[in-house]
Amino acid sequence: MSNDIVDAQVSPTGQFDILSKYEIHKLSDESRGPQYQVFRNCSLAVLNSGGYMDDGKELLETYADFDISVIPTERSVKLKVSNAPASAFVDGKMIRGIAEHLFAVLRDIIYVNSEITGDPRYNLVSAQGVTDAVFHILRNAGTFDRNRTPRLVVCWGGHSISAEEYDYTKKVGYEMALRHLDICTGCGPGAMKGPMKGATIGHAKQRDRHGQYLGITEPGIIAAEAPNPIVNQLVIMPDIEKRLEAFVRTGHGIVVFPGGAGTAEEILYLLGILLHQDNKDQPFPVIFTGPASAAEYFIRIDQFIASTLGEAARSKYKIIIDDPQEVARQMAAGIEKVREHRKETGDAYYFNWQLKVSTEFQRPFAPTHENMRSLALHKNQEPYLLAANLRRAFSGIVSGNVKDEGIRNVEKNGPYELCGDPAMMHSMDTLLESFIKQHRMKLPGKQYIPCYRISSD
Amino acid sequence: MSNDIVDAQVSPTGQFDILSKYEIHKLSDESRGPQYQVFRNCSLAVLNSGGYMDDGKELLETYADFDISVIPTERSVKLKVSNAPASAFVDGKMIRGIAEHLFAVLRDIIYVNSEITGDPRYNLVSAQGVTDAVFHILRNAGTFDRNRTPRLVVCWGGHSISAEEYDYTKKVGYEMALRHLDICTGCGPGAMKGPMKGATIGHAKQRDRHGQYLGITEPGIIAAEAPNPIVNQLVIMPDIEKRLEAFVRTGHGIVVFPGGAGTAEEILYLLGILLHQDNKDQPFPVIFTGPASAAEYFIRIDQFIASTLGEAARSKYKIIIDDPQEVARQMAAGIEKVREHRKETGDAYYFNWQLKVSTEFQRPFAPTHENMRSLALHKNQEPYLLAANLRRAFSGIVSGNVKDEGIRNVEKNGPYELCGDPAMMHSMDTLLESFIKQHRMKLPGKQYIPCYRISSD
Amino acid sequence: MSNDIVDAQVSPTGQFDILSKYEIHKLSDESRGPQYQVFRNCSLAVLNSGGYMDDGKELLETYADFDISVIPTERSVKLKVSNAPASAFVDGKMIRGIAEHLFAVLRDIIYVNSEITGDPRYNLVSAQGVTDAVFHILRNAGTFDRNRTPRLVVCWGGHSISAEEYDYTKKVGYEMALRHLDICTGCGPGAMKGPMKGATIGHAKQRDRHGQYLGITEPGIIAAEAPNPIVNQLVIMPDIEKRLEAFVRTGHGIVVFPGGAGTAEEILYLLGILLHQDNKDQPFPVIFTGPASAAEYFIRIDQFIASTLGEAARSKYKIIIDDPQEVARQMAAGIEKVREHRKETGDAYYFNWQLKVSTEFQRPFAPTHENMRSLALHKNQEPYLLAANLRRAFSGIVSGNVKDEGIRNVEKNGPYELCGDPAMMHSMDTLLESFIKQHRMKLPGKQYIPCYRISSD
Amino acid sequence: MSNDIVDAQVSPTGQFDILSKYEIHKLSDESRGPQYQVFRNCSLAVLNSGGYMDDGKELLETYADFDISVIPTERSVKLKVSNAPASAFVDGKMIRGIAEHLFAVLRDIIYVNSEITGDPRYNLVSAQGVTDAVFHILRNAGTFDRNRTPRLVVCWGGHSISAEEYDYTKKVGYEMALRHLDICTGCGPGAMKGPMKGATIGHAKQRDRHGQYLGITEPGIIAAEAPNPIVNQLVIMPDIEKRLEAFVRTGHGIVVFPGGAGTAEEILYLLGILLHQDNKDQPFPVIFTGPASAAEYFIRIDQFIASTLGEAARSKYKIIIDDPQEVARQMAAGIEKVREHRKETGDAYYFNWQLKVSTEFQRPFAPTHENMRSLALHKNQEPYLLAANLRRAFSGIVSGNVKDEGIRNVEKNGPYELCGDPAMMHSMDTLLESFIKQHRMKLPGKQYIPCYRISSD
Repeated sequence: MSNDIVDAQVSPTGQFDILSKYEIHKLSDESRGPQYQVFRNCSLAVLNSGGYMDDGKELLETYADFDISVIPTERSVKLKVSNAPASAFVDGKMIRGIAEHLFAVLRDIIYVNSEITGDPRYNLVSAQGVTDAVFHILRNAGTFDRNRTPRLVVCWGGHSISAEEYDYTKKVGYEMALRHLDICTGCGPGAMKGPMKGATIGHAKQRDRHGQYLGITEPGIIAAEAPNPIVNQLVIMPDIEKRLEAFVRTGHGIVVFPGGAGTAEEILYLLGILLHQDNKDQPFPVIFTGPASAAEYFIRIDQFIASTLGEAARSKYKIIIDDPQEVARQMAAGIEKVREHRKETGDAYYFNWQLKVSTEFQRPFAPTHENMRSLALHKNQEPYLLAANLRRAFSGIVSGNVKDEGIRNVEKNGPYELCGDPAMMHSMDTLLESFIKQHRMKLPGKQYIPCYRISSD
Repeated sequence: MSNDIVDAQVSPTGQFDILSKYEIHKLSDESRGPQYQVFRNCSLAVLNSGGYMDDGKELLETYADFDISVIPTERSVKLKVSNAPASAFVDGKMIRGIAEHLFAVLRDIIYVNSEITGDPRYNLVSAQGVTDAVFHILRNAGTFDRNRTPRLVVCWGGHSISAEEYDYTKKVGYEMALRHLDICTGCGPGAMKGPMKGATIGHAKQRDRHGQYLGITEPGIIAAEAPNPIVNQLVIMPDIEKRLEAFVRTGHGIVVFPGGAGTAEEILYLLGILLHQDNKDQPFPVIFTGPASAAEYFIRIDQFIASTLGEAARSKYKIIIDDPQEVARQMAAGIEKVREHRKETGDAYYFNWQLKVSTEFQRPFAPTHENMRSLALHKNQEPYLLAANLRRAFSGIVSGNVKDEGIRNVEKNGPYELCGDPAMMHSMDTLLESFIKQHRMKLPGKQYIPCYRISSD
Repeated sequence: MSNDIVDAQVSPTGQFDILSKYEIHKLSDESRGPQYQVFRNCSLAVLNSGGYMDDGKELLETYADFDISVIPTERSVKLKVSNAPASAFVDGKMIRGIAEHLFAVLRDIIYVNSEITGDPRYNLVSAQGVTDAVFHILRNAGTFDRNRTPRLVVCWGGHSISAEEYDYTKKVGYEMALRHLDICTGCGPGAMKGPMKGATIGHAKQRDRHGQYLGITEPGIIAAEAPNPIVNQLVIMPDIEKRLEAFVRTGHGIVVFPGGAGTAEEILYLLGILLHQDNKDQPFPVIFTGPASAAEYFIRIDQFIASTLGEAARSKYKIIIDDPQEVARQMAAGIEKVREHRKETGDAYYFNWQLKVSTEFQRPFAPTHENMRSLALHKNQEPYLLAANLRRAFSGIVSGNVKDEGIRNVEKNGPYELCGDPAMMHSMDTLLESFIKQHRMKLPGKQYIPCYRISSD
Repeated sequence: MSNDIVDAQVSPTGQFDILSKYEIHKLSDESRGPQYQVFRNCSLAVLNSGGYMDDGKELLETYADFDISVIPTERSVKLKVSNAPASAFVDGKMIRGIAEHLFAVLRDIIYVNSEITGDPRYNLVSAQGVTDAVFHILRNAGTFDRNRTPRLVVCWGGHSISAEEYDYTKKVGYEMALRHLDICTGCGPGAMKGPMKGATIGHAKQRDRHGQYLGITEPGIIAAEAPNPIVNQLVIMPDIEKRLEAFVRTGHGIVVFPGGAGTAEEILYLLGILLHQDNKDQPFPVIFTGPASAAEYFIRIDQFIASTLGEAARSKYKIIIDDPQEVARQMAAGIEKVREHRKETGDAYYFNWQLKVSTEFQRPFAPTHENMRSLALHKNQEPYLLAANLRRAFSGIVSGNVKDEGIRNVEKNGPYELCGDPAMMHSMDTLLESFIKQHRMKLPGKQYIPCYRISSD
């Protein structure tokens, strides 16, 4: 597709239909305020969903003249876009799914900032306060349906995986949809798109007209991982940690496909939560899966978990290689247990209030050299805290690999230093080496220069 | 029906289905706070809708042990009632329409107080701020439907009218429903109930399954004028003035049936607004109507308006006696003009943003002897301001007649004194005398002792 | 209402929306064929539903110039009416409910005659064949909803009852609707209209938007008992016997209000069926009820049943006097047993296939003097057959009292002669005398001259 | 997928939910009657839709033990299958889309045979009678929706096309769905599946939840061209000619992709109809399209049409090469004209009653050597009749190429002989030679031996 551009005005969908004068002016004012850049860049990402560019910087440069503004009308607002990617339009009219995503950006960046995260009545320091905010953002986005039985499977995995792995994720999505399961991912290509594409066909075969394809993203990642058009509910959480909490509280089970350091980070986040004493009776099906060629990836992950977090952690997941039907069958069976548990305890189907997520997993981690060096990477702590620290280490590596700020940090100060007890450092080294050999640390075809250095205490 | 009582718990309907922990605790806390008495008394009024007692005081005494509380559950709340009127239940289960009204009380007393009128971000001093609040309360109550063409007729009139007048209101409601019009009233019996009952049959004949029966009340009146069960949308506005503004902004036309001083107050409010220069191009059908026996009532009102506000005011309404079909036909035709006007100007169908309601009509009026005596009742002012002052005079008389505080005031300090220019005072005297003769100042069978004294300057 | 008349064309609703050329021409042709008079007269009855005339002859004379025809259009048909009662229209447009009834007439008189009763593939001689035809007519009318649990109560009783009895039927309808029950009657005024009016309010209070008000009539009675506008499903069965079978197979329980000889006929039909050996395990709640003033009516009926059909018959019903809530509670409880029984046996909720209706109850009875005289009115037969014969006797008396042909028959040949064993004849005499004393044999104010003579063998 | 087999019982969907005893027994009896083989084989084809076997004979042999029967239940029927392809099931439960197709087979083979084509009241000799039958079969299948504006595009083309052509059909389907158009094809793979797959994604992007994917097939072809699971309305017409008529009367426009002799047959059928004098004012958009590599195919077709049917015929279609967006744009514009025309003339949107289809195009053609030799292939006739004869010639060639009976005919009697005037025979020869060169006469990789011989008069 060419980089043709279009100017247009778009009428609201959903909650922006009926506004007061007060709200009209507030939206219009605030969209020009401090949030403007985030609002604009997320809007651009959404508009470019058809054009496959997985580098956020490239996108921003290509459409440097793109502009968006909120136009007040007599009883609501319109969005005015200039120099927008033409691929979002059909014969001059914006594709409806993309228009919905655009208003989701307005809702989650401008409105949520004003009404939820910016409202002093929310206590965003306490664990409960953060969880309430996560809930309110998701409810405001219309993701809760009280008449829906548990059926939402979160799919994690890399965004630049091999064609074989991609096809495998489609098959798993297809088999899950045949069993009336829905899909939630982090948006973007690869393992986040495949399961939704497969599920579309599966739901069509089962005449399941209301399949849910929930995409949960955050402003820092949306440009690189724009929502694919199949996503029919898009939510932009304010930061990585709230996004992760949204995954584990709305999903009824999790499938992990092959990925890289980012996927390892997600796995450690999840295990850290499931290892917490308060969560020991929570049914929560977790399956690691991939085609035969990806077996090595999970073997390494499994060995690393065994040697760091131990057998208790290993009991939290199953590994199933090259069997999409079995993955879907086990996930459906696991989610049936979730349903029974929620029913017994009177908990909501649409949000897992009971899951304990402690503040270690809610507080943002800034990957400075200082913070990285100080991570407590040893066994003299409760396993769930060790998992939290290991997650931070991988989070830092992801940043040093691909995020703008992290890369510049490493260029300036040299690789991050990670220190810990020798056995653990050895495990970590082994795992990271295996990622490099499997070409999972960078896009294929480029030589990987590590952004970290491992040393024992 | 006996005064049997029942204890029960009621599950939420509508917006209280999906709550956060934060909201659950807040609702539960605030329902026990300063708003508790209002919350309890309004709840009792709603529960007693089947038992016809039109004296609020009698109601409160009969069910002195009634109690209501908000009970937190795992994912929402329940309402627990003790010693509640048994007539609200069928075989131990609360009638659904009444349960909906009960949650409307929770919504409008507790939630609205916390989220709208109690939110410092609303400026409740400016005219625009008040209008925005009125809008938000109505939207929050789910009364706006953007796909509905204009069809809502506000019906005003007395709550203790004769059987003949009551039957007439039913016929007008029936004929309007046959023409696909909906009904909005202030809840309660008499002219507020008749049109809805008639409309129910009219809508059934036209297979109009989604007839709107909107009841707009306020805490001071709901006990005496409890919502009849046909009301399928109940909104409790915070005070008289916001309730009146809600009527004129949501209704697309107004029918006035015979009443007493209260109805005169409503007529003066309406004329005051329509006489404002900014509203001169607003199509707004207003019809005064009643059976032949009520002709006298409207003749007197009409004469009073002619002699005080003049011909401009008279041009704002039509009087149609004893012809329900003609009333309905003219209202339907008038509302068609409203539709065209809204369409042309791009204004919303569900809320009349363009209508100018100046602060004189928004500010509460406290009917003290001092305030009553100081009212400017002369023609040296713009007609719309004179209408505002006349409205206040009638508002005070209503208070002195039937409201607890007003009655005590008059008992203590003697009748209110109203002074103004002689001709106007004469007109007022004549009108009030005619109300007394028609037995419209008190319930029939009781001798009326005036709560006011009229004197010229 | 005046006898103003209107000419109009009406567009189809429901199944006549999408027709083939073949069907268009067939409908158009057949509507001018032998069925024309029945089609026209039923149409006129339906159009006159607003104008209360309960004498079919008077109606036909008043609108002697009324005409209706089927007009082919490009893809369907319209109905053209001339000189139609103006009360069916609002500002020149036919009320939708009445338009639906008009197309129900087209469907049940013209279409059903052509496609069901006139189709040689239906065997209308066998019991099964008749039952299949009843089923197909009802299904074609859209009365079956497979997702509806059992909740349909058939209400029988007189069409010219006292105001007190009428109010009582409204209260029973109201209490049943509060318990989520629906109403089926034979159309027309009195006990057929009251329960529906009451139920409309009860359903509104329970927010039961899809209350079913099923009217089942037949061409011979529709002019005298026109469907009231609340009926939202109208079915015209081909004859009395199929109408009675439709009642007992679609209803889940039956309430009998006071009536006259016609109501006695219905009771005997029902008992005859329930007394059949094959139906002994069928749960089928039957309640006779009325206000205190109607107690005498049911005492007499009960005595008559005791002395003719015996205790087995008495066990098939309950008598509840002056307690609408208790009637509704017992009916709801009885229908719950029906639901369980249908569920256990896998039978449909919408049609009672299991009920045995033998050909004695399906074959039309022509009340000639010869046939009346030959009725076997003695106990030397199975009770269900005796019930069938007693029903025929009352059917003949109804005909001699009010039907055109019966009246002329009696005028010509003197009263019908009924012979039987002495005790039974005495019981019958006593019952009929009590009807006469209660003014249930004719409209009040007219002297009743019996159309029958009772003699023992 | 393996050839695992499964036994199961399937509950009805749609119209078989509510049946009478009469219908239950009739369905059960007739399914074991003369139609059994057709019923069984079509059922097997539908059940095998997941397993890609495009040879009907192979299918029948693989599942030689497959059996299906209609099982009466208390109020409906079930379908019992034995030795059915396991791919139709998920964990033992039949995929719902396939179950719907299975009941469509029951409906169109057993029920339609009994109620429509077997009903003596239909006159299947007259043109109008055939058209009525086509209409009734389609309406009975639920394909008509009177609220749907014209948007159905029929896609024709080969079932064994190249990967490049297949991808192109997906892109065209995608672009049409983005413009809110629906797809109708003949079921099966290739050009019949691609547009539906593409449209699924396009509709999802436009949030068009009710996309129509109509498959129209006939018993002789369904085994080789089984309905793909995306088809959400399946209709099995009784024969080729009624299937073609169903296409042109329900479709609002036609896109022709590359194919072989079968596609040429369809083109000639269509041109024959559009060339009829009575159809000259019918707007009917027809577009021939394919990727650049397929240009040759359409050039040859176009030349052939020019030299046989002339310029009038060429004016009935457009050729667009390698531009899916342009195809979709022009089709949408053409269909807008169809909508206007239907609106003006009052014709139905869901069925083109006005199109003249003369009996030449309705009567089945049996491709015997005698019939082929006698075809009038010269210009001394009206062009629409010439088109009819040319269609028959291609129909015969298709039969000689791929249909069981045709192949055996040719093996026994040698190639068909086609005679006509020299110029026309030359054109035909040239066209067929080009098909052979493009490998469009047989599956790629096999040598084509012509089943025909062309000779001039």
